[in-house]
Amino acid sequence: MANFDLMRRLTVNEGGKIVLLVMDGLGGLPMTPGGFTELETAYKPNMDKLAREGSVGLSIPVARGVAPGSGPAHLALFGYDPLVYDIGRGVLEGIGIGLEVNEGDVAVRGNFCTVDAAGKITDRRAGRIDTEEGAKRVALLQDIPLADGVKAEVKIAEGYRFALVLRGAGLNPEIEDTDPQITGVTPLPAKASIPEAEYTAKLVNQWIAEAGKRLKGQEPANMVTLRGFATDPRLPKYSDVYKLKAACVAVYPMYRGVARLVGMDVLHTEHEDTPADEFRRVAEALKTYDFVFVHIKPTDSRGEDGNFDGKVKVIEQVDAALPILLEANPDVLIITGDHSTPAKYRAHSWHPVPTLLYAPETHMPDRVEAYGERECMHGALGQFPAADLMQMALAHAKRLVKYGA
Amino acid sequence: MANFDLMRRLTVNEGGKIVLLVMDGLGGLPMTPGGFTELETAYKPNMDKLAREGSVGLSIPVARGVAPGSGPAHLALFGYDPLVYDIGRGVLEGIGIGLEVNEGDVAVRGNFCTVDAAGKITDRRAGRIDTEEGAKRVALLQDIPLADGVKAEVKIAEGYRFALVLRGAGLNPEIEDTDPQITGVTPLPAKASIPEAEYTAKLVNQWIAEAGKRLKGQEPANMVTLRGFATDPRLPKYSDVYKLKAACVAVYPMYRGVARLVGMDVLHTEHEDTPADEFRRVAEALKTYDFVFVHIKPTDSRGEDGNFDGKVKVIEQVDAALPILLEANPDVLIITGDHSTPAKYRAHSWHPVPTLLYAPETHMPDRVEAYGERECMHGALGQFPAADLMQMALAHAKRLVKYGA
Repeated sequence: MANFDLMRRLTVNEGGKIVLLVMDGLGGLPMTPGGFTELETAYKPNMDKLAREGSVGLSIPVARGVAPGSGPAHLALFGYDPLVYDIGRGVLEGIGIGLEVNEGDVAVRGNFCTVDAAGKITDRRAGRIDTEEGAKRVALLQDIPLADGVKAEVKIAEGYRFALVLRGAGLNPEIEDTDPQITGVTPLPAKASIPEAEYTAKLVNQWIAEAGKRLKGQEPANMVTLRGFATDPRLPKYSDVYKLKAACVAVYPMYRGVARLVGMDVLHTEHEDTPADEFRRVAEALKTYDFVFVHIKPTDSRGEDGNFDGKVKVIEQVDAALPILLEANPDVLIITGDHSTPAKYRAHSWHPVPTLLYAPETHMPDRVEAYGERECMHGALGQFPAADLMQMALAHAKRLVKYGA
Repeated sequence: MANFDLMRRLTVNEGGKIVLLVMDGLGGLPMTPGGFTELETAYKPNMDKLAREGSVGLSIPVARGVAPGSGPAHLALFGYDPLVYDIGRGVLEGIGIGLEVNEGDVAVRGNFCTVDAAGKITDRRAGRIDTEEGAKRVALLQDIPLADGVKAEVKIAEGYRFALVLRGAGLNPEIEDTDPQITGVTPLPAKASIPEAEYTAKLVNQWIAEAGKRLKGQEPANMVTLRGFATDPRLPKYSDVYKLKAACVAVYPMYRGVARLVGMDVLHTEHEDTPADEFRRVAEALKTYDFVFVHIKPTDSRGEDGNFDGKVKVIEQVDAALPILLEANPDVLIITGDHSTPAKYRAHSWHPVPTLLYAPETHMPDRVEAYGERECMHGALGQFPAADLMQMALAHAKRLVKYGA
């Protein structure tokens, strides 16, 4: 991973502009022997040209053979070894939708679910109600009073999902999920994993009980389950470790959340933003920021759906919009994924991720002719840990001084 | 880096002869898109033949994205992680010119400078006087008496640069530079960074005051500045960790200094030695030594000057002399650089360094046809940390026994 002590020592306050373009779940697999991957199939003349001129390679998100979730995978791209820096899912969800999670707070993800008259879960996702319906239920859950003046803030995420943050003294996040992961049983009570969390578990159960009362009659969303209790991981910040004024352009809460945790400013986006819309925001941001992270979600979604052609189309759409980004003329442009999501596999996988580094002043050309998994096997960057990427970006942006005399 | 505990356990007292040929700043970049690097451009039939027969790869000096100074870069080639083992510049300079720096001594680099009547610096490099003129001034600074019988040894390095070593009890190197890095001000007094170094700072100021008196009227070199206070880093020695009797053939002080620090014997060279001269010394040394490190400086100097063609010529000169080395028939020959110094970049860079390993009994051939950056991307050695190289050298010299049963 990035060596933060070293980076603090070597980074300077000026230098080139860096764009990190992440197509979520970019890496793929051929659907049949002898076939091409999604990236190899896509018509993407802009990316191919950048690959021909610049350096490519394959990044290993966490460790060989390990398929990461979106949180760890992005931490790695940002230079944080995800095996060292662990963010609880509750925190990600909370800050991703704009809830503050400060030192000492406890954050958790919530799902609305459907329970029958006996309190047993019949649908763990409350019929996948839409965000509007979810928000109506969340409105009912505001200001649930808790013992000792502990405050509970709750906010809709998307559809049947929300986030809950408890604020007060003496809170501890070591609490087990209340989601039993199956139907036909009642939600589990919040249970402390360690004695120091028993007080918090008691408050959580108090909150759940009141939430259940207020949701009576609100079928299909008439109960809640909670999972991923966590607190602020206190990550080193981009401004501190890299001396970068950094911004995030991302539509989905999770990615905005991780970016905020490392100290990026999360810029305004609309949920309907296309890649072209996002790139216009990046181009604007580059006027005032040193570093912009831009995130494209649908590559991953199509991969998880097993929709090979759909994923190809998303890549083509990104490529078609790329000139907007290139006209903003970043000194360093990195195009990569956070992990692979092969349509064939329909899930996040562990396969190394095609990565492209374009920095015309300093990149080392290789003999690669296009951007794709197999081309990247022969690139100048070799195979490398994703968490090393930021050091390379800083070097190419001329933001690192020499180590030692 | 080399795992020294493991090496102590696995190394044996006999085996093949190893030559480590380092062309300083070897790695380069094309000057224009579609062009070739310095190494790719050079006509070097001998190296290309070795690359064709042997193994090549790319070494990473310190960490991805980190451009190293010469000291750390050579430590890495010698198997010492430069992020773990840190040598102060004063020590490097001192031992590089043959001053002993022992445990408890404090060494520092000195510059002659020009001061006006008010004591303010008008030229930080004393008009870049030559070594002969520098030596005359150094002669004036011999045997400056210090309190408590502490001894001060001073020796010319090159031009306006010298080294100073203090020897006595209770010395501590935590002292800030006296070089203000600008003109128009007086040199700074030596200032302790920690209380334990205050006694030493007092002695240094005593030395500076007397030096100033003795240099009165010696314009343009009528004052001194000091920087890089340091003490012996006590590195593990080649004889201990590798069981190697090792020698160094290098013209420049810095490289001789690092070699001495790891326990190599520094052999006699002349400042004017050509690569052919150096290789003759290596061939002679191989009769009595197990390991010879030979250093070629001008590849780096031409790179820093932005002189692409000049750097190409140095590589060609080394190649033309290579048969002298080959006739000495080392069992393992490694040809590499300590870091990249692309003429395009005019400075040390972080790009991985082309590395060639020729050990006819055991090397793994690859499909590489020549020695160059892009060929090395496809070599048998892959991309690897420079500090792993010594373990590979020992293995190919049959100096390591098997690990475990």
